Amino acid sequence: MIFLATDFGLAGPYVGQVKAILARRAPGVPAIDLFADLPAFRPKEAAYLLAAYAGALDPNDVLLAVVDPGVGGDRRPLMMRADDRWYVGPDNGLFELVRRRAKRAVCEAIAWRPARLSPSFHGRDLFAPVAARLALGETVAGDPATPMAQDWPDDLAAVVYVDRYGNAITGLRASALPEDAAIQIGGERLLRARTFSDRPLGEAFWYENANGLVEIAVNRGSAAAWFGLGPGAALQVETPG
Amino acid sequence: MIFLATDFGLAGPYVGQVKAILARRAPGVPAIDLFADLPAFRPKEAAYLLAAYAGALDPNDVLLAVVDPGVGGDRRPLMMRADDRWYVGPDNGLFELVRRRAKRAVCEAIAWRPARLSPSFHGRDLFAPVAARLALGETVAGDPATPMAQDWPDDLAAVVYVDRYGNAITGLRASALPEDAAIQIGGERLLRARTFSDRPLGEAFWYENANGLVEIAVNRGSAAAWFGLGPGAALQVETPG
Amino acid sequence: MIFLATDFGLAGPYVGQVKAILARRAPGVPAIDLFADLPAFRPKEAAYLLAAYAGALDPNDVLLAVVDPGVGGDRRPLMMRADDRWYVGPDNGLFELVRRRAKRAVCEAIAWRPARLSPSFHGRDLFAPVAARLALGETVAGDPATPMAQDWPDDLAAVVYVDRYGNAITGLRASALPEDAAIQIGGERLLRARTFSDRPLGEAFWYENANGLVEIAVNRGSAAAWFGLGPGAALQVETPG
Repeated sequence: MIFLATDFGLAGPYVGQVKAILARRAPGVPAIDLFADLPAFRPKEAAYLLAAYAGALDPNDVLLAVVDPGVGGDRRPLMMRADDRWYVGPDNGLFELVRRRAKRAVCEAIAWRPARLSPSFHGRDLFAPVAARLALGETVAGDPATPMAQDWPDDLAAVVYVDRYGNAITGLRASALPEDAAIQIGGERLLRARTFSDRPLGEAFWYENANGLVEIAVNRGSAAAWFGLGPGAALQVETPG
Repeated sequence: MIFLATDFGLAGPYVGQVKAILARRAPGVPAIDLFADLPAFRPKEAAYLLAAYAGALDPNDVLLAVVDPGVGGDRRPLMMRADDRWYVGPDNGLFELVRRRAKRAVCEAIAWRPARLSPSFHGRDLFAPVAARLALGETVAGDPATPMAQDWPDDLAAVVYVDRYGNAITGLRASALPEDAAIQIGGERLLRARTFSDRPLGEAFWYENANGLVEIAVNRGSAAAWFGLGPGAALQVETPG
Repeated sequence: MIFLATDFGLAGPYVGQVKAILARRAPGVPAIDLFADLPAFRPKEAAYLLAAYAGALDPNDVLLAVVDPGVGGDRRPLMMRADDRWYVGPDNGLFELVRRRAKRAVCEAIAWRPARLSPSFHGRDLFAPVAARLALGETVAGDPATPMAQDWPDDLAAVVYVDRYGNAITGLRASALPEDAAIQIGGERLLRARTFSDRPLGEAFWYENANGLVEIAVNRGSAAAWFGLGPGAALQVETPG
């Protein structure tokens, strides 16, 4: 199975062009849209999302991820095998958190190049064919490589994604926080809840979302609108005692 | 075939995570996105849409529908077999109109539970595996159940969905109205047309849409913008004589 | 392979209903979303996009395209075989640029009609079944036809699409411009770049996008927001000497 996680947007031809390549080169392998709207131009925030949502991958599945403002420049194309899953994308930190949390991870710079490589769409021209081959169990030429170093924290006290309901997903793993931690944001102090329906209508809280991340939410309301949140917005964790 | 109708939004990882489960558990069964943007938190409006658009199902197809603000609370998970189609989702009225209009419908509370059930994402953890099994013709453990009673009308004189063009779909079946009925909305009185191109540019009208519902439209314009319409907006039906 | 290019919008049931028909009638044939958000009601701008993005088609692939404000009126349904690819949609100019640029193109008015044809959704009721049959190599009844004449230029000096990043795709082929051409827009004069990362952050430029079209962009910014651009916005090409 191939998972797509990009900042291409749902609209427009980009995801479709990538899927056409996958369907031609790896026919019968399902291509699943995980994110088409990763935070645009922000590999850092995206990296925390990917580490949490890559839990959907089974062994030998491939995650093709592209948030790549440096496309066509000198950043390297990367393939990483981590805990028996494949990760394909630009070497700009996108897989940094997946790598740190893996029991075992091996990175290679992709050496293979297509006959025609546009300077602005490596997702279609380079990463998609590589993902297709890896999904089929084929090998792709590469050179051992250490990914570009990133001085990012293990958990990020900031919003990394706002969903349709206005829930604000953060880069913090709930398991890294004490049960009774509070989140300070926009002058308010939010306590933990188990799920939406445990709180009165319109009340804000934080909870561990279905992929293990701290999420700021309002029961039947929009936390993003309430607190004015978007990707990159900082928050503080307050631990009692 | 499995149809998805949710309020998860097109963006973000929710639909993809559900489809990954379906692709793993019911490989080769097409999963079709019918709605990813049912009115958020509004099972009532969604119920009228589902009853009209479930016409796309053939016998043994499955409709997996989730508008579920009460997820993780005490509302029951439901599976319904109605006129040889399967419906899977929360017991909050989502399938109320499908059930009323069916020749024969049998409801069960889903008794099966997955090994891990998150309190906020039953779409992925519970409803998707159930939908996959039903699509494969397998059985799922359940208990006979009467769905929660809803005192909703058989046709809803309100907007239930606004599409990309700004057309406002209502909860009224056109077949329930006389041919010469008028719709009162925003101080205007709209007459029936057969289709867009029958009216001058910019003129508002109502018509029977391709799924049998009354729809308020403007030829090459946005009825929603013109009249300020969104899900829940009320209208009046005026029948001559 | 069947490619979909419509102005139906990503939201709502329209694309899904078309895909359900394709999945039933051409099971196993991949259906790829190329565009769900072609400029609404604007077959002219869409025609330049389709001509550029139809490059994704292989021989015998089918492009099902619908931007069809005249649906249900007297415009004819069309099927065109051009350079061994199939094009199916309304006769309103959508395929005009594909046709002009093809080495060989044959057009027919579709004579086949479904048992039930709604006046507002020929995409589902007529074009989808035709596309499915053509994708399977079957024949569809038709009458030789000359498409409606369009006095459109071979390249269009206007924006035809704005993508998620705010890049503004134009109807101009880069190959039709001298290497050192400048684009005048909103009082600014933009020079050519190879790709985003060749320019300083925030700088506007034009470049040949991955499908050969002139695209107006800002490195890590939104050209559409900067210049206030949307489909139809005009620009001037300035050629030196």
